[in-house]
Amino acid sequence: MGRVGHQTYVFERQIGIRTTGVVVGQKEAEGPLAKYFDRLHDDMRMGQKTWEKAERTLLKEAMDLAMRKAQLEKEDIPLYIGGDLMDQITTTNFAASSLGSMYLGIYSACGTTVEGLALSAMMMESGAVDRVMTGAVSHTYAAEKLYRFPNEYGVQKPPYAQRTVTGAGVALLEPGTGPRVEAATFGRVVDSGLKDPFDMGSAEAPAAVATIVAHLQDLGRSLDDYGLILTGDLARVGLTFAKQLLEGQGVTPTERVEDCGVMIYREDQGAFAGGSGAGCSAVVMYGWAVNQMRQGRYRRVLLCGTGALHSPTSVKQGDSIPGICHAVSLVMDGDR
Amino acid sequence: MGRVGHQTYVFERQIGIRTTGVVVGQKEAEGPLAKYFDRLHDDMRMGQKTWEKAERTLLKEAMDLAMRKAQLEKEDIPLYIGGDLMDQITTTNFAASSLGSMYLGIYSACGTTVEGLALSAMMMESGAVDRVMTGAVSHTYAAEKLYRFPNEYGVQKPPYAQRTVTGAGVALLEPGTGPRVEAATFGRVVDSGLKDPFDMGSAEAPAAVATIVAHLQDLGRSLDDYGLILTGDLARVGLTFAKQLLEGQGVTPTERVEDCGVMIYREDQGAFAGGSGAGCSAVVMYGWAVNQMRQGRYRRVLLCGTGALHSPTSVKQGDSIPGICHAVSLVMDGDR
Repeated sequence: MGRVGHQTYVFERQIGIRTTGVVVGQKEAEGPLAKYFDRLHDDMRMGQKTWEKAERTLLKEAMDLAMRKAQLEKEDIPLYIGGDLMDQITTTNFAASSLGSMYLGIYSACGTTVEGLALSAMMMESGAVDRVMTGAVSHTYAAEKLYRFPNEYGVQKPPYAQRTVTGAGVALLEPGTGPRVEAATFGRVVDSGLKDPFDMGSAEAPAAVATIVAHLQDLGRSLDDYGLILTGDLARVGLTFAKQLLEGQGVTPTERVEDCGVMIYREDQGAFAGGSGAGCSAVVMYGWAVNQMRQGRYRRVLLCGTGALHSPTSVKQGDSIPGICHAVSLVMDGDR
Repeated sequence: MGRVGHQTYVFERQIGIRTTGVVVGQKEAEGPLAKYFDRLHDDMRMGQKTWEKAERTLLKEAMDLAMRKAQLEKEDIPLYIGGDLMDQITTTNFAASSLGSMYLGIYSACGTTVEGLALSAMMMESGAVDRVMTGAVSHTYAAEKLYRFPNEYGVQKPPYAQRTVTGAGVALLEPGTGPRVEAATFGRVVDSGLKDPFDMGSAEAPAAVATIVAHLQDLGRSLDDYGLILTGDLARVGLTFAKQLLEGQGVTPTERVEDCGVMIYREDQGAFAGGSGAGCSAVVMYGWAVNQMRQGRYRRVLLCGTGALHSPTSVKQGDSIPGICHAVSLVMDGDR
């Protein structure tokens, strides 16, 4: 098929998710999706001296798990595409250094998971590589320290804030079926002028809606064509807003739209409006959603990687928080 | 051709650099390459209140120039791929927001220019888009403030340090000839254990050499097949080191290896060992090198985007500085 419409590419090759590796921290391990994650940490330092190094451990473990499940070694991985929330995406830089593969660093904040999945599939589509590993990671204490305040300060947050997920999710792509990458819709930056860095879901929601609508228009589809539309980290405030925006554009039924940030914690876990972070979409999409497709619950799922493209500096200088969303449609072929 | 060897992809489509847009600051405007840059600023604030916003102005102006030369409007640009040195690549996020195109954020530090060029060509190869704009930017005062100390402190630097280039360089790719993207070699992270953040050239040199050697081996070529091998920002210390490493591997003649960081300033300009930064390769490659190819001076040029993958935090935590290098071979077909 190739390019369809303005923003969508339909893959001609069969590009499947062969294995995934998903590692999470304590609060995620206590949440409703724990059984879908491969490794649960109760030590938030993961045996490291700093939060930043703990985050690297998460990503390296997720890489190892994805390789081990496929009975592959580091030398068998030609390319890693990924990123994270740390300044200069150092978590991924160092994990890619340990891996030893070719490496393309990317950044779209919490939408990095899906940008990586889309670009990985593009690299396989052209035949540049026959196998790619891609993923994203975040650590709540590393993110708090960088974006807000060190956790030890005990600064209070508003109830509409989100908790950065501690976790890494990685997918190993190979020629194959299930679930396979059917199409990718590349997002535009959408800036609604919102400026509250605690309310990232609302800053991301218009971008999520723009990309979902573009995806459906490009392919001539409706939400009914998907068993699930899974946004990355709108959390409860942003998801409600996104559904209102979709319904305002006549795009229904929005019950099919769910959000990783809403799903990953129970409401009584004290995670405010829900999860956020590059690791949020990574662990829920590669842990839970891929599993649900393999179990036959969903035949086609639209993964929507939402990102808030601010920095602590841009917020302090009074800038708005632009949002972006890249989408990838996964499909299970046949009646497997 | 498709994939050749382990790390290289040879493009089947004709993907050419149609126009470029290059904007620089004061010291670059006083340097030996000034006449190859489209716009020279003498106000380091570019009319903005902060260095970070000045950096955005540089990038937006470079985008505008590349579009204007091609008589295109923002609406004609389907996709921008790029990044910068700021935390969370906010410069590029905001410029991409103004542009309004689809946007893929990337990061490989000072190697971002060439990662962007390679990925842009991959997106065109598969037919996902028929036109891409790609580029990179840095601003010396924004970078000093973020990576080292605010310039106003007057902290002294060792003579082997480098000066971050103030400048943005953008290329507009379309189906066409000159110069066209012939091949891309995707780099691996190379960590030599160096830890001095002032000596980025030495941290990058082994990565540059690894990618140059991989490129030549994959294609069965020698340095003689290139009129010029242009590294991004090794500067004088790193370039000398890289040439020693190449000669140690029997890869000669290394007179053909030049470096954007060495070329952009005269030795008497007080820029230490030379230029660095994502803008360094962007302005020299898209300003000077593309011009020299069009003038017929070089038929084939290997652009080597070198990056040091550290952050201020990783350096303070005692980590080494891993390097990476992505390479793109440009060629002028025929005797145009």
